[in-house]
Amino acid sequence: MESGDGALSATSLDESITSFFTSAPPLKESDNLRERVMEFVELNSTIAAGDGGHRKVVCVTSGGTTVPLEQRCVRYIDNFSSGHRGATSAEYFVKAGYAVVFLHRRGTIMPYTRSLPEDPLLECLELDGDSSIRVRQSCSDAVKKSISDHHAAVAGNLLLKLPFTTIFEYLQMLQIIAKAMKPLGPLAMFYLAAAVSDFYVPWQTMAEHKIQSASGPLDMRLVQVPKMLAILRKEWAPLAFCISFKLETDSKILLEKADMALRKYKMHMVIANELLTRKEEVTVVTVDGKIPVYRDKSQPDSDVEQPLTELIRNKHSTYIKNTNR
Amino acid sequence: MESGDGALSATSLDESITSFFTSAPPLKESDNLRERVMEFVELNSTIAAGDGGHRKVVCVTSGGTTVPLEQRCVRYIDNFSSGHRGATSAEYFVKAGYAVVFLHRRGTIMPYTRSLPEDPLLECLELDGDSSIRVRQSCSDAVKKSISDHHAAVAGNLLLKLPFTTIFEYLQMLQIIAKAMKPLGPLAMFYLAAAVSDFYVPWQTMAEHKIQSASGPLDMRLVQVPKMLAILRKEWAPLAFCISFKLETDSKILLEKADMALRKYKMHMVIANELLTRKEEVTVVTVDGKIPVYRDKSQPDSDVEQPLTELIRNKHSTYIKNTNR
Repeated sequence: MESGDGALSATSLDESITSFFTSAPPLKESDNLRERVMEFVELNSTIAAGDGGHRKVVCVTSGGTTVPLEQRCVRYIDNFSSGHRGATSAEYFVKAGYAVVFLHRRGTIMPYTRSLPEDPLLECLELDGDSSIRVRQSCSDAVKKSISDHHAAVAGNLLLKLPFTTIFEYLQMLQIIAKAMKPLGPLAMFYLAAAVSDFYVPWQTMAEHKIQSASGPLDMRLVQVPKMLAILRKEWAPLAFCISFKLETDSKILLEKADMALRKYKMHMVIANELLTRKEEVTVVTVDGKIPVYRDKSQPDSDVEQPLTELIRNKHSTYIKNTNR
Repeated sequence: MESGDGALSATSLDESITSFFTSAPPLKESDNLRERVMEFVELNSTIAAGDGGHRKVVCVTSGGTTVPLEQRCVRYIDNFSSGHRGATSAEYFVKAGYAVVFLHRRGTIMPYTRSLPEDPLLECLELDGDSSIRVRQSCSDAVKKSISDHHAAVAGNLLLKLPFTTIFEYLQMLQIIAKAMKPLGPLAMFYLAAAVSDFYVPWQTMAEHKIQSASGPLDMRLVQVPKMLAILRKEWAPLAFCISFKLETDSKILLEKADMALRKYKMHMVIANELLTRKEEVTVVTVDGKIPVYRDKSQPDSDVEQPLTELIRNKHSTYIKNTNR
């Protein structure tokens, strides 16, 4: 096992993290959020799992964060992510018996909706005469499966959906969730698939009003978002199994950067994916080596998340056994 | 009537417009789009309207455009707009007998969906036993109205929905639509409610790969998007009735800026709205004066778009009569 200190505890990192949180606009209803997460975690931690232990809890993050450029926000920088990876993975984790805290960008793909059309309500429903509504035959099976799986997960306390928009909301919510999951020890897992902004405009230096376009080009200076993975591992939930993602468009630097992230932030796994091929294959980078994971191309509806989450479950089980030994 | 030339024909504007379009990534399936819009316009232009003339066509733009910061787009600057104004106004225009080309940001609010919950399919439907799906009682009326109004508009050729994401797509699509609507003369209207980026990164100067965060702050230079309103009025559809929107967070400069836009781009109306009060009131700025428009506060479900679109319809009718005289 890695130790929880060492290279991470640089004072400059601590300072930039403190500065980020103290300058961020306060999260709305943070007490209410904390209570909901703690209740969800406690409820699940008392439930026995099939393998003799207790139920595992995974926080899946999904979608991209935004960086406001103005305090009364009209313009912002966004990080592209449909949320497909997170939503699909959340479904497989629920199926495998995990309770899932789904920290997602508002408006991105939700678990159990990926087989539906883009505008499902208007596209899938029709009026039967003047009075009753029916589901179109072509959508019927997909809609039924979507609704019944979603309701089963929510009713079984296996899915808690929490939306964010800005980088400020995301990191404050992640901190609350991580601290609430800390008591779970190695039964907790973080599957950090969200596309988190690397740069932000500190709240105090931000324009209050809409930036005016009257005169010439716009020059902007953005500063780096401190790497919270370090403090997640060191303080928020030191025993949790942590998986981060590295997305690049340039395959030449991808594995090298994934490897660097693994060592620098003491992740248990880094999932390396390239923008163009990310739905076909990913590489799981661990200290013991690199494991390529492919979608089963012989099946038309297959996805790479199914073999990926299966591999992760196995590694997490081994981690729990080794940690409790 | 204003003349179609004069102050607008500055060579530098023409140059910056040419440079924008020649450097933009080519629009996908532009021929197909052109055909669909022309078919929609032609079909509607042969239909007689209640007032003895022919059916009017309005292009409603809605939602915000994005500015990519990288060619293989991971990060982009976005302009916030829920699309509520555009979607609601489109409904009223259809109700008033207009055919509506709804040029909207992918994923924003669509006409006939604003009374539904955020995640309507999962929230409104439930399984009745194991086999059939039913609409929850609490959503039933809203869902019925939404589906029947939407289907009536689409089946009656009164609504053509065209999605965009980037500023490059938006302006190329607007040009195609405007040129297809040009033959309608004064029966054509543009209701430009979309939040269009003021600044962009020219495609050639853009980073091909994801910008790396390793070393220090990020400095960016963005150049101004050329004001296409000028060329819309001058060349694309010179006889169309044109309404643009001005959104500011600072009320002190709002009306002055709206007035400036009216004169500079020869708009027939500029709708001035302030971020915080935009759902309660707007000011219609014309060369004849400023008309405040308020939501009817005595009605709980009222909106400002109803009186606004009514005022616009009247002004547009007068404009058609004056132009044809």
